Amino acid sequence: MADREKDSAAAAKGRLPRTLEWVGGSDGHLRMLDQTRLPTELLMRDCRSAEEVWQAIRELCVRGAPAIGVAAAYGLCLGTREHRGLSPTEFREKVRSVGEYLCSSRPTAVNLAWAVARVIDRMPRVEDVGSEAAWDAMLAEAHAILAEDAECCRRIGLAGAHLIPDGGGVLTHCNAGALATAAYGTALSLMYAAHEQGRRFRVYADETRPLLQGARLTAYELSASGIDVTVICDSAAASLMRAGRIQVVVVGADRIAANGDVANKIGTYSVAVAAWHHNIPLYVAAPRSTFDLGLASGALIPIEERPEAEVRSGLGRTTVAAGAGCWNPAFDVTPAELVAGIVTEKGLLEPVTEPIIRRFFG
Amino acid sequence: MADREKDSAAAAKGRLPRTLEWVGGSDGHLRMLDQTRLPTELLMRDCRSAEEVWQAIRELCVRGAPAIGVAAAYGLCLGTREHRGLSPTEFREKVRSVGEYLCSSRPTAVNLAWAVARVIDRMPRVEDVGSEAAWDAMLAEAHAILAEDAECCRRIGLAGAHLIPDGGGVLTHCNAGALATAAYGTALSLMYAAHEQGRRFRVYADETRPLLQGARLTAYELSASGIDVTVICDSAAASLMRAGRIQVVVVGADRIAANGDVANKIGTYSVAVAAWHHNIPLYVAAPRSTFDLGLASGALIPIEERPEAEVRSGLGRTTVAAGAGCWNPAFDVTPAELVAGIVTEKGLLEPVTEPIIRRFFG
Repeated sequence: MADREKDSAAAAKGRLPRTLEWVGGSDGHLRMLDQTRLPTELLMRDCRSAEEVWQAIRELCVRGAPAIGVAAAYGLCLGTREHRGLSPTEFREKVRSVGEYLCSSRPTAVNLAWAVARVIDRMPRVEDVGSEAAWDAMLAEAHAILAEDAECCRRIGLAGAHLIPDGGGVLTHCNAGALATAAYGTALSLMYAAHEQGRRFRVYADETRPLLQGARLTAYELSASGIDVTVICDSAAASLMRAGRIQVVVVGADRIAANGDVANKIGTYSVAVAAWHHNIPLYVAAPRSTFDLGLASGALIPIEERPEAEVRSGLGRTTVAAGAGCWNPAFDVTPAELVAGIVTEKGLLEPVTEPIIRRFFG
Repeated sequence: MADREKDSAAAAKGRLPRTLEWVGGSDGHLRMLDQTRLPTELLMRDCRSAEEVWQAIRELCVRGAPAIGVAAAYGLCLGTREHRGLSPTEFREKVRSVGEYLCSSRPTAVNLAWAVARVIDRMPRVEDVGSEAAWDAMLAEAHAILAEDAECCRRIGLAGAHLIPDGGGVLTHCNAGALATAAYGTALSLMYAAHEQGRRFRVYADETRPLLQGARLTAYELSASGIDVTVICDSAAASLMRAGRIQVVVVGADRIAANGDVANKIGTYSVAVAAWHHNIPLYVAAPRSTFDLGLASGALIPIEERPEAEVRSGLGRTTVAAGAGCWNPAFDVTPAELVAGIVTEKGLLEPVTEPIIRRFFG
């Protein structure tokens, strides 16, 4: 393994604190890196109840579609642990209601509901094994989701690394990196893998208003891994494209509809339109769990609107006159026709059309 | 005059503190609203030397192409006042060198050089009248530039008010308002005039990273004038367009080349590409002094790059990891083909092509 390979892998898996981990055994708890404090503070936050997990997801201490799925799976364990004395029927009902509660923390990313449903679906029959053993199986399933997410992200990176051009410029929006997943990330996993393969490229990271995940998180984890990264204001991306400095755009996704429409961080659509205008391919990197084949198109994806204060008083200083309104959608939808391809753990899906997606899952 | 007309005019000219004014007679000084403190503080800043004016322009206490032209004209008076005892040749040389110095404060907006050149060109022959009288004429010329700018902006507003659709949504970027000019503004002048004419519409103001002139200034002056304004993150504009909530885009300009390419605040090009993609017309509102017919195209317009810190530590909190770079161009260039028309004090110029521009000035 070349030095840079070790460097990059170490940074993606080791040097950066873990995004999420379970500390202890069946009486343990969930520990996460509080991402609201980055890049200036490395603060770990411990969650010991479903409520604390719900709050951590809502406040974006943990964010990124795959990572909040993992957090919710553990939240489900935390929220049902003390109910192991209940009857099988009551315990099952408790699991269901805690799962529903956790899913209410954020509406857009499908991975959250997917992870909760997976833990519930794979739980052994409580009548057969008892609630103790059923709960142990839930925790094991949460561990499996965490481990599989890291492995899945790694495969996404390897499946798409060839899309990162040697000597080129890569634009990304928000943070679809190790901090958004168990490890490696989705969009950034392509860059980690390409870097390990010896390609040299510059990443331009949209700062990603209002919460600056690109500036705070993407620039942090890429620079920690020795990848050349430059932060720009979101509105400067189109100029860079016009100047010929971007050869490819890679972003993550929070939910992908059956027709290939992609919900992702607000501003992704703006980037997609600019890329289209400049004939630059835009790839979406996401695990298969991000697809929601039950939704025919992106128009049906619920879009979370977050508090005005994130725009009005970003970073603690009020910047908008009291008499003015603010609009703060957390996500937007990019229609499939603007997406060149979707990189999954099972390979690259292109072009992005409903028949090809259906076949991919068929 | 209808109540709303009085309201709007009062806000544009009266209730808002003056963007710039000369206080006193020939021993007076320049007073400006410190725009870096808005919207939370109304602080006036007094400039008594060319250096203080240079600094105020550089630090964006006064900004906006027309306003910095006015400020530079007064700065030229302040920087030469104490040299009235010099010989005619020495005095003329002093005027020239102070003018050059003031032009170095910011490179992109042509109005700055235009205003300085106008004061110098119209100065009477120092040999004939003496430097006292020549200086008095310079101050009178600066006053004239201020007064004409307000009148010119008003005419721009009246010339383009019909472009603001009743019941529609208008997007603007940065601040091309009363705060960017002597009064009324350029892009916002259309909105003030349309509002007075009784049209109802909603303005969406891009917050305009990194310095948030849209959030801090545009939202402030429009809401103070009773115009419905909602602030959005720059990256949300394309989504609003896709949702059918924007019928027209109106922006200002810092310099317009002979072929109609427009330099304006970074992000304008991004908005223009999105508007083009959604078939929404984008109009540029600017006085004739913003045209630089000596430049064949926008590629020749010098683009100011500002300190990284504006992106890295916006609002006083560091948000970018130390290992990452930042790129902070203050302006971008929108090619003429994306501009539906240019609204000037002499009427609407469309389509935007070099022959039409040459004829307009011919």
